[in-house]
Amino acid sequence: MTAEILCIGTELLLGNITNGNARWIAEQLAALGIPHHRQTVVGDNRERLIAAVREAAGRCRLLITTGGLGPTPDDLTTEAIAAAFGAPLVEHPEVWSDIQAKITARGRAVAPSNRRQAQLPLGAAVLPNPAGTAPGMVWTPPAGAGIQPGFTVLTFPGVPSELELMWQVTAVAWLRDSTLAAGVFASRMLRFWGVAESSLAEQVADLLAGENPTVAPYAGAGQVKLRITARAGTAAAAAALLVPVEAELRRRTGSLCFGSDDDSLASVVLQLLRQRGQTLAVAESCTGGGLGAALAAVPGASDVFLGGVIAYANAVKQELLAVPLAALEADGAVSDSVATAMAEGVRRRTGATWALAVTGVAGPGGGSGDKPVGLVHIALAGPAGCSSEGVRFGSSRGRSWIQLLTVGEALNRLRLAL
Amino acid sequence: MTAEILCIGTELLLGNITNGNARWIAEQLAALGIPHHRQTVVGDNRERLIAAVREAAGRCRLLITTGGLGPTPDDLTTEAIAAAFGAPLVEHPEVWSDIQAKITARGRAVAPSNRRQAQLPLGAAVLPNPAGTAPGMVWTPPAGAGIQPGFTVLTFPGVPSELELMWQVTAVAWLRDSTLAAGVFASRMLRFWGVAESSLAEQVADLLAGENPTVAPYAGAGQVKLRITARAGTAAAAAALLVPVEAELRRRTGSLCFGSDDDSLASVVLQLLRQRGQTLAVAESCTGGGLGAALAAVPGASDVFLGGVIAYANAVKQELLAVPLAALEADGAVSDSVATAMAEGVRRRTGATWALAVTGVAGPGGGSGDKPVGLVHIALAGPAGCSSEGVRFGSSRGRSWIQLLTVGEALNRLRLAL
Repeated sequence: MTAEILCIGTELLLGNITNGNARWIAEQLAALGIPHHRQTVVGDNRERLIAAVREAAGRCRLLITTGGLGPTPDDLTTEAIAAAFGAPLVEHPEVWSDIQAKITARGRAVAPSNRRQAQLPLGAAVLPNPAGTAPGMVWTPPAGAGIQPGFTVLTFPGVPSELELMWQVTAVAWLRDSTLAAGVFASRMLRFWGVAESSLAEQVADLLAGENPTVAPYAGAGQVKLRITARAGTAAAAAALLVPVEAELRRRTGSLCFGSDDDSLASVVLQLLRQRGQTLAVAESCTGGGLGAALAAVPGASDVFLGGVIAYANAVKQELLAVPLAALEADGAVSDSVATAMAEGVRRRTGATWALAVTGVAGPGGGSGDKPVGLVHIALAGPAGCSSEGVRFGSSRGRSWIQLLTVGEALNRLRLAL
Repeated sequence: MTAEILCIGTELLLGNITNGNARWIAEQLAALGIPHHRQTVVGDNRERLIAAVREAAGRCRLLITTGGLGPTPDDLTTEAIAAAFGAPLVEHPEVWSDIQAKITARGRAVAPSNRRQAQLPLGAAVLPNPAGTAPGMVWTPPAGAGIQPGFTVLTFPGVPSELELMWQVTAVAWLRDSTLAAGVFASRMLRFWGVAESSLAEQVADLLAGENPTVAPYAGAGQVKLRITARAGTAAAAAALLVPVEAELRRRTGSLCFGSDDDSLASVVLQLLRQRGQTLAVAESCTGGGLGAALAAVPGASDVFLGGVIAYANAVKQELLAVPLAALEADGAVSDSVATAMAEGVRRRTGATWALAVTGVAGPGGGSGDKPVGLVHIALAGPAGCSSEGVRFGSSRGRSWIQLLTVGEALNRLRLAL
């Protein structure tokens, strides 16, 4: 007994908007413990909409649609769903009164086309829309060949704010009572830095095969994530199932795991420094401010992050960070000696407890034999002195990836030092 | 002869991520003139993935998949597509060599599971992945019942940056040659800053109703875009159709239009400065480095962008930028006097022709009655002196939006000054 989501709108097929409704509903279904195995998008086309509804009726118990409930000729959802099961449309006088009252209250004129919105297939119940004019419906079409027993459609408008309010006010209670929910889900996302998805997956291969909780790996933006998802009769029981699996994953992966759920490397580093009453400054060449921006993206960063210097040009490295000309001339800007001088310089100038400095070849130009594109030197200066190291990120993923990986790697080095 | 998009990933069904890939591909297909009538999402489940592929094969000519190309056990796409048409998997030695080389270049160990990524169905061609380890494929399965003649699958990874690079580098040429496109399309994206989508749309309403070229508005990340798309028998004829419409749009919108196609505000500003042989420095408080990072994101920025100071803490504003304590005490850090002192300070310290400074309340905390969350002061110092102004971005969209809009607004002010 599973659910599907069908989103209707040509604007989705043209790429004009992102399908945020599907994500929002998916999250709600997961929280309600209603399994959901497919999402479909079709345009404002009667024939293709009817086909998609018929197909879903043969696969799932609950179909949730969004979009196509408005008054214009390209709003086809209600009529096409009725036609998919050969049902006539019936006007609901109380809905028509409600629509007229809402339009009038907004100082607008009622158009004849609004009357279409008061029609529902024979036997459908109104799913009230507290925000907009168009109501949705709850409808179990007559049984028939190729229709799952008890197949039911819930329709929602495509405007996200109306959909979300309607869901919470009128649909959640129905869904909870529908016996579709097979328990309640709880999930936890663990976040990793400095390990490839494939090698992490091999370390935890036996846990990836688990059924409840399930563990699934994801890669993206330089980090790897493992999502643990458990199902049980209550939220507390589901959460309890997560605990031993999370503990085992953390035991095996040690310091590779930098946080969970909404943590970022920057938020974790800031929190560690906050607990110690310490501060941080940065000196950036190849990232041009990206390291500082990652820290400033975290609300409340200002009690720990002091700022720093964007030393993109060598003259700025000398003038604002007192990097010795000799180091620049002898070793070049991309070197441990310059990274060290940058970190120590910004630490001295700002009085921060810790300082991170990065200097590298972000490409696509500027690489050479011994200093290829993707080579970055990262220095960390702290109370016990300064260390610097060259890291090679390779050139295949391009400039923005090298900058992104440099920011993550620098923050991770400070995290491990703390 | 239409296309469909099939996105594979349990994280989409759980609502963990928004399906931005479907939107991105939809936009690309629209620009290429390839009609596309359905999008489907399924989880990492072999049986349901096979069913979705078979169904699509009966409906469309081109199926584009995203996700499930990684090395872990829940990456099932290639194997399930092969199974859907009863084809065996064949290892491609050159792909396996390439995967090993890429992993080794990143200083990581090759795992046995990576070898799965070198297997494709018999008869499939490799669709190279310039960024990641996993290649995609182009495959026309053997003809059969329930399969549209010429049905072809293109597979892409789920990581957006890899997908987008692969699409542009290896797929676009194939798609243009595929005869799926109905005619030849040419398109041009005009980019705007400082105008709302609705008001821009009203200014050009008559052109939005055009059929060839079409003009479609898009909003996102603080800027508004108009895409002009023309269709004709040849590329030259299609491009010629764009010219008068672009000229008319530029005439009506004047300086609101900052660039086209791959331009960013940062790239346009850097180019204007480069033409004048001038340089730029930044002093950032509330953006924490985001303004510098936007400039450093542009390849070749280093001949114009010198760097600057991230003056997050007031002590750094004083120490590195010589902002007078009196200004900080009398007017507060978020003020025209401090923004001006920051801009003049960084211009003096770096010797840049121009300097931009931003200081504001990014929130969610730190707002007050006369300095609410979303208030940002932006100063521009140049050869003719310094001007500063307070801008209110509001608080409703949150911290990251305020930072993003601050970066754009600052760059746009310099653009207009130039």
